[in-house]
This record gives sequence, structure tokens and C-alpha cells, in this order.
Amino acid sequence: MTETTHKRYVIIVGGGNGARMNSPVPKQFMKLDGKPVIMHSINKFLETDPSIEIILVLPEDHIKFWESMCEEFGFHKPVKIALSGETRFHSVKNGLEFVTEDNSVVGIHDAVRPLVTSKTILAAYKAAEMYGNAVPAVPINDSIRQIETTRSIAVDRSRYCATQTPQCFRADILKKAYLQDFHYTYTDDAMVVESMGEHIRLVDGNVENLKITGPKDLIIAEALMKADAQVFIPNKN
Amino acid sequence: MTETTHKRYVIIVGGGNGARMNSPVPKQFMKLDGKPVIMHSINKFLETDPSIEIILVLPEDHIKFWESMCEEFGFHKPVKIALSGETRFHSVKNGLEFVTEDNSVVGIHDAVRPLVTSKTILAAYKAAEMYGNAVPAVPINDSIRQIETTRSIAVDRSRYCATQTPQCFRADILKKAYLQDFHYTYTDDAMVVESMGEHIRLVDGNVENLKITGPKDLIIAEALMKADAQVFIPNKN
Repeated sequence: MTETTHKRYVIIVGGGNGARMNSPVPKQFMKLDGKPVIMHSINKFLETDPSIEIILVLPEDHIKFWESMCEEFGFHKPVKIALSGETRFHSVKNGLEFVTEDNSVVGIHDAVRPLVTSKTILAAYKAAEMYGNAVPAVPINDSIRQIETTRSIAVDRSRYCATQTPQCFRADILKKAYLQDFHYTYTDDAMVVESMGEHIRLVDGNVENLKITGPKDLIIAEALMKADAQVFIPNKN
Repeated sequence: MTETTHKRYVIIVGGGNGARMNSPVPKQFMKLDGKPVIMHSINKFLETDPSIEIILVLPEDHIKFWESMCEEFGFHKPVKIALSGETRFHSVKNGLEFVTEDNSVVGIHDAVRPLVTSKTILAAYKAAEMYGNAVPAVPINDSIRQIETTRSIAVDRSRYCATQTPQCFRADILKKAYLQDFHYTYTDDAMVVESMGEHIRLVDGNVENLKITGPKDLIIAEALMKADAQVFIPNKN
């Protein structure tokens, strides 16, 4: 049984300036289990597919810092650096410049999601290869309500899901989508592709794949990493 | 300035059988920072308002275990015990039997939300006193999508929120709502009251107020508790 696998890229978006973290260090550079968050994220993709091409999008004034961290942590992985833009849309667009192979699948991943699993990554790339796109998603556990001007209305949470990254797309489709003009309603990449009329396909994400946006998220991520490590102690699961 | 405060009750619903925890101990009885989750939850309400009346709803076959835990932990708080029913709806209805004062506000709280803050509790009770009901809610941080048969559709997450407990109601309204027949679409108490035509009011919840439904949630809760404790070290915040 042979399987044709398209070339894979991942654009890792690390454009945040850390304003919400109450910290001079942007959140993707903060340490998780002794290593910068962003390095965990990059490693997850390389461990899953050593041939994947990594494109890291960073603000220009973080590049020196990134390079000094690579020295400090002996992190010498083949990573191409693109400059971040005004919004996530512009950052991804800049990253896409490094996608030279049109017959490929491109994942776009938040640098601050270090707990993505190989299973989630592979599910998204394989489905995108087959169907053109795929977005990892998990069920919403809380009851949710729709906010109206003077009231709130119960909604059936089973009809909704929370999306994660990597959001994966066939390169040709993604490039075409990013030729569109920017619109402020684009909060993720799936929306950019969806606005061309594409139907977005969902695959199973992993619940631990949280986005580290505040100091408490870092604490949660650290606890989850340690818990996962425990699972691998023989005779303990 | 005087402030009339209505009598307050809280119905703490601890009806789960722990099936999802891979553990013989139901999740509300699992230990968090050395003490059962449910005791943390009860303490939060008593610390916030020592005059509040606590009604604890438990499955009949957990009551002996609860009593032995109270002995073990020297937990001798004034708690009335109601028996849980077939669904949450029936459990709350049983708990309401102990609400004898109609001119009061009743909160309904998940036993497995030990990280609720006094601020959230007071916001909900005060708003319910004034407006008839109040539900704590927090913004949804993830992008969300609506699931359709063959596709998924982006939705504007800022129009939705995730609800928590305690959900608070004026006793007369709540009792009337629980005279209705049970309907399977009721996933929380606000929906029962809403089905009578009441508009549900939202107040700010606290993001740490997670519902412990799986083993990872317990790990997260533990990490958040420790992080909160650190915040109180002098000169450290």
C-alpha cells in the first residue's frame, strides 16, 4: 500500500507583542517547562513530520531576541523567518511568500499553542490533502448563550465547536484566498478561505491544545504537560 | 446608607457519579489541595456570606460517604441534604423543597466548581435580587463554528458567552419555573426559568471558575489554586 503525501509547510504565527501577559517577554517566548513556548510548538511539527518546512512569522524587532534564544537553547532547526504584518492576515500573507511548492499542504499554527498533539497535526494535514482544508475543533463544554441588547438567549452548544490550529489548506487554495483584500471580520484563516465560498471541514483537535494568551494559561499548560508526562510512567495508566 | 439584603440560599448540586473520571470516587469528592472539591465549593459560599443557607443535593448512596468525609476533615458546617433525582432538573427541584422563605434569592451551584470567587457569587446574588435572575458568564476565547450537516460556518464569538454557576434567581420565580414539566433540552437552570418567558441577565463570572468534569480539569484547578495563592505573597503582585 503506497500513500502519496504532498509536501507540507507550517506557518507558525508568533506576532503577539505580549501586552496581555504583564510581562516584557512576548508570550510565545515565555518559558514552559524550561523552554520557550514557541520552541515546543516548532518541535511538535518536526517530531510529527521531520520533512515539514517551518516558516516562522515574527515582528522585526523580535528577531534578534529569537536568534539569541536559539543560541541559548542550542536550538538549531531549519526555520525560515518571515516578518509579521499589521494583522494576523498580513502576517500569514507574508509567511506564504515562502511557500514555493503549489502542490503542497500548508498548516497555519499559533506559536502559542505548544500542546498540540501529533494526532491533531496529522488529522488536519491528511484531511486537507484530501478535501482542500481542515480545521481542528473540540466540543464546547460550557453552556453558551447568545448576547442580545437587553437579554441573553440559550443556544444548543452541541451545534457549535471551538476551533484550534493548525488550520490546514491546500497551498493553491490558500494563496488564492490571501489575494483577497483584508476584512476586519477575519479572526482566523478558515474565515479567509471560507469567504471565497469554500466549505470548511472539521477534524478532531485535542482539548489540551489551548492558546496561551494570559499568565494563567501558562500555568495551565505547565500543569497539563506534567500530567501528560505522568501518563507514560509504566503501569501507571 | 442601608441596604436591604434578602435571605440567601444556595443549592449545591453534587449529583454526578464520577463515571467520566476513571475513578471510583465521584468527582465532587476528589481531593483538591488536600480537601474534597465539594468542601471548597461550600466554603466559598460561607466565606462570602456566613448567613447563607446551604442545601446540598447528593445521590442517596453517597450520603454515608459524605458523612464519613465530614468526620475525616472535621467539616461541621450547617448543611441540609436533599436527594438527587433522575436529572439535574429533578435534583434542583428536590433541593428547592428546603427553600422555605419565598422572599429570598436562591443560587444553584455545581459542586464541581470550587474556584468560583466571592466577587462572582456576590455579583450574581445582587443582580438577581434586583432583576429577578442573574447568570455569571465569561467571554469565549476560541474561535467558534456552527456545525452543519456537510460543513461548518464561522460565527462571531463576541456575540456568545460561556455561562457558569451560581445561577441565581428570586425564589418565587424559580419555584414557579420548577413546577413546569421536565424537558430534555434543559441543560441548566437558566433555561428552565427562560422557558417561562423570563429574560436572563448576565453578570461577570471569573475565568478560573471551571467545571471539573475530567481528570485534567482537576490538574488545572490545582495549578490555578496554587497560582492564586502566589498572588498574595507580599510585594509579589
